[in-house]
Amino acid sequence: MTSPLRLGIAGLGTVGVGLVRIIQRNADLLTLRTGREIVISAVSAKSRTRNRGVDISAYDWEDDPVALARRDDVDVVIELMGGENGPAKALTEAAIDAGKDIVTANKAMLALHGQELAERAEEMGVALRFEAAVAGGIPVIKALSEGLAGNRITRIKGVMNGTCNYILTRMEDAGLPYETVFDEASQLGYLEADPTLDVGGIDAAHKLTLLSAIAFGVKPDFDAIQTSGIERISIEDIRAAADLGLRIKLLGVARVTGRGLEQSMSPCLVPADSPLGQLKGGMNMIVIEGDAVEQVILRGPGAGEGPTASAVIGDVVDIARGMHLPVFGQPATTLQAAVSAKATAAKPWYLRMSLLDKPGALAKVAEALGNAGVSINRMRQYGHQDTRAPVVIITHKTTRDAIDHASALAVKTGVLVGEPVAMAIEED
Amino acid sequence: MTSPLRLGIAGLGTVGVGLVRIIQRNADLLTLRTGREIVISAVSAKSRTRNRGVDISAYDWEDDPVALARRDDVDVVIELMGGENGPAKALTEAAIDAGKDIVTANKAMLALHGQELAERAEEMGVALRFEAAVAGGIPVIKALSEGLAGNRITRIKGVMNGTCNYILTRMEDAGLPYETVFDEASQLGYLEADPTLDVGGIDAAHKLTLLSAIAFGVKPDFDAIQTSGIERISIEDIRAAADLGLRIKLLGVARVTGRGLEQSMSPCLVPADSPLGQLKGGMNMIVIEGDAVEQVILRGPGAGEGPTASAVIGDVVDIARGMHLPVFGQPATTLQAAVSAKATAAKPWYLRMSLLDKPGALAKVAEALGNAGVSINRMRQYGHQDTRAPVVIITHKTTRDAIDHASALAVKTGVLVGEPVAMAIEED
Repeated sequence: MTSPLRLGIAGLGTVGVGLVRIIQRNADLLTLRTGREIVISAVSAKSRTRNRGVDISAYDWEDDPVALARRDDVDVVIELMGGENGPAKALTEAAIDAGKDIVTANKAMLALHGQELAERAEEMGVALRFEAAVAGGIPVIKALSEGLAGNRITRIKGVMNGTCNYILTRMEDAGLPYETVFDEASQLGYLEADPTLDVGGIDAAHKLTLLSAIAFGVKPDFDAIQTSGIERISIEDIRAAADLGLRIKLLGVARVTGRGLEQSMSPCLVPADSPLGQLKGGMNMIVIEGDAVEQVILRGPGAGEGPTASAVIGDVVDIARGMHLPVFGQPATTLQAAVSAKATAAKPWYLRMSLLDKPGALAKVAEALGNAGVSINRMRQYGHQDTRAPVVIITHKTTRDAIDHASALAVKTGVLVGEPVAMAIEED
Repeated sequence: MTSPLRLGIAGLGTVGVGLVRIIQRNADLLTLRTGREIVISAVSAKSRTRNRGVDISAYDWEDDPVALARRDDVDVVIELMGGENGPAKALTEAAIDAGKDIVTANKAMLALHGQELAERAEEMGVALRFEAAVAGGIPVIKALSEGLAGNRITRIKGVMNGTCNYILTRMEDAGLPYETVFDEASQLGYLEADPTLDVGGIDAAHKLTLLSAIAFGVKPDFDAIQTSGIERISIEDIRAAADLGLRIKLLGVARVTGRGLEQSMSPCLVPADSPLGQLKGGMNMIVIEGDAVEQVILRGPGAGEGPTASAVIGDVVDIARGMHLPVFGQPATTLQAAVSAKATAAKPWYLRMSLLDKPGALAKVAEALGNAGVSINRMRQYGHQDTRAPVVIITHKTTRDAIDHASALAVKTGVLVGEPVAMAIEED
């Protein structure tokens, strides 16, 4: 049997504790499957004394994660501290420079510094793996970079933030407004310390950045993703969508077009009876389309102790087995700068507006849409609320540009209360 | 750059042609992702002159697949001939003995001879890979043996034969009887040369055999799977299931129990609104449950040129990248003989019987069930057809043994026409 694989774990929050539990509980299995023992040499976290419900007394303690990365008895550094800069990045760089393999769950760090870190890791010949950074327990990085590596990927889409999906499905199921459910999610501990990361779509866009890099061979480029969050989704939108046989999802879409790569993370409507529409609660789902495989869909828990630790240990198992591949599936130096295309694909759009209760208001809005070249497929006006009337319009297929133009013209009519809410309908 | 990886392809049917197409079309991508060229040295098939719509003139031709396996200019042998014995097995053995890596799509061969072949391959230090053998384009072997390798797997279930799923969903959607849809599927070329392999559940049970070996560390043992097919499913069953909010699927289930491994491939009822219930047409779906990851669901096309070839090339990419792991995820010599448990888990069951149109018939059947300890949760009697009355019973949770006993007692009453149709309801 080969020598043990020795881990140094930096960060003992939910995922770190989950990882320790798996290694303690499934030691026999891990040895059987990798041909070697997987052991923990040392750990590092903020508080040494905090009770985490797991026995870490057998592991050496390091106050300084960078010192952990440099220990002679650590082969693989597990970075579970989070944060795009600061200690996590310093630890990762120190580990690379010390020639250690790294496993991380840090989507923000890789979305923003992935290119630089990947080049550095590949130059040093160390592994830098991040299955846990995207879609929790779903082995999507592996599916994309290995199982489907013979495919020219044409599109990826999916729900990549369980908290947003929890909020949206809870709003629908309980008929509660956004603010109430947001507070619930906060009390349940579902939200990041900065909740904008979740509800602003940023966390999910970090994940899409990483998937795009692998799928399309582009440098990870978070800024190339058109990102908007779910903060403006109202219970009226949820109900109107349900009326139309649709559901609202914070949906990431990255697809190849003749003009470049279209990438967005934004609230969209999907058919209620589609796999994405059926996805409830904190689940994640990734849809991958390639020129050979057609379509593969992966679904699983997007977060949580066990699922995320499952992804981390999956990467550790690969390293223990001697598998080694470039960080983003091809050498980082061969990744291309993404050519970002504006979303030119014509889709049906959902528009919700609040009309002032004035004669001719609806006609003015309809005219504004017509002037922008947007034609109406279906329209529903709901009962008046105070002095305003909610109107929902489903357009014929049109572009984002036309919708933006139509929205601007509609605002100019002076018959709207506030701005229109516009969401693309992703039918297929 | 490393030297090219040279393939010898045996079998140029649908999948073989798909593989040639991918290698020709995506050569640049494959090189970028593996760091080497992937080339075809030689091919072998039944007919050299048949027009396959793909140019194979640049590849050497071998009439004898075994000769192909022994060529000095072949590094990896791709076995796409099929058949559990005969040429496919001879080719595989020759390739192992010649020290070549092997990629195969042959579920029957591996389900029946997998242990022997795996031991031989591992002794020779060659790879024997079979992603394409299970669930077409879905990278499920990889997910199970690599991505989820840190988990103690507790259950696998899924739809693994697209043809059966096509037949069952078509019966429901079109309201057609089994025989009519079977003939349709036959004309569409969806059925194996021996259709019993599909509709008898054998092909799907071969696949479950392979998944179980990886998931539970047991020797592949096809005979350990309780297999029954869809031939007795009538349009009445389909309709009764729909009435109850359920759908019938040919479902594979393998789960760990205190007494051993329960493994079955049989028609079951699942909630119509569950992911399995929503699965239509020729799609496959595998649900994997582990102690850390909770539940991951994979869905994709179960067959077809592109998807199956995608799985083959995925294995080739792994070999090109130098990845190497045991055939079933742990050394074949460490696989245990499966301890087969009878299905002891209590589940609700569906029973359909045809009652003679006689006074007291229903009471007699109800009494028979009671005597077997089976209690009735819901019952529906449908309108009389000729002189018989179809009755559908949903039981409270009970065991297969009790259901078998109840069925036998019900038959003994003499009020039934034919045998009862019994199917477990897999609710979760």
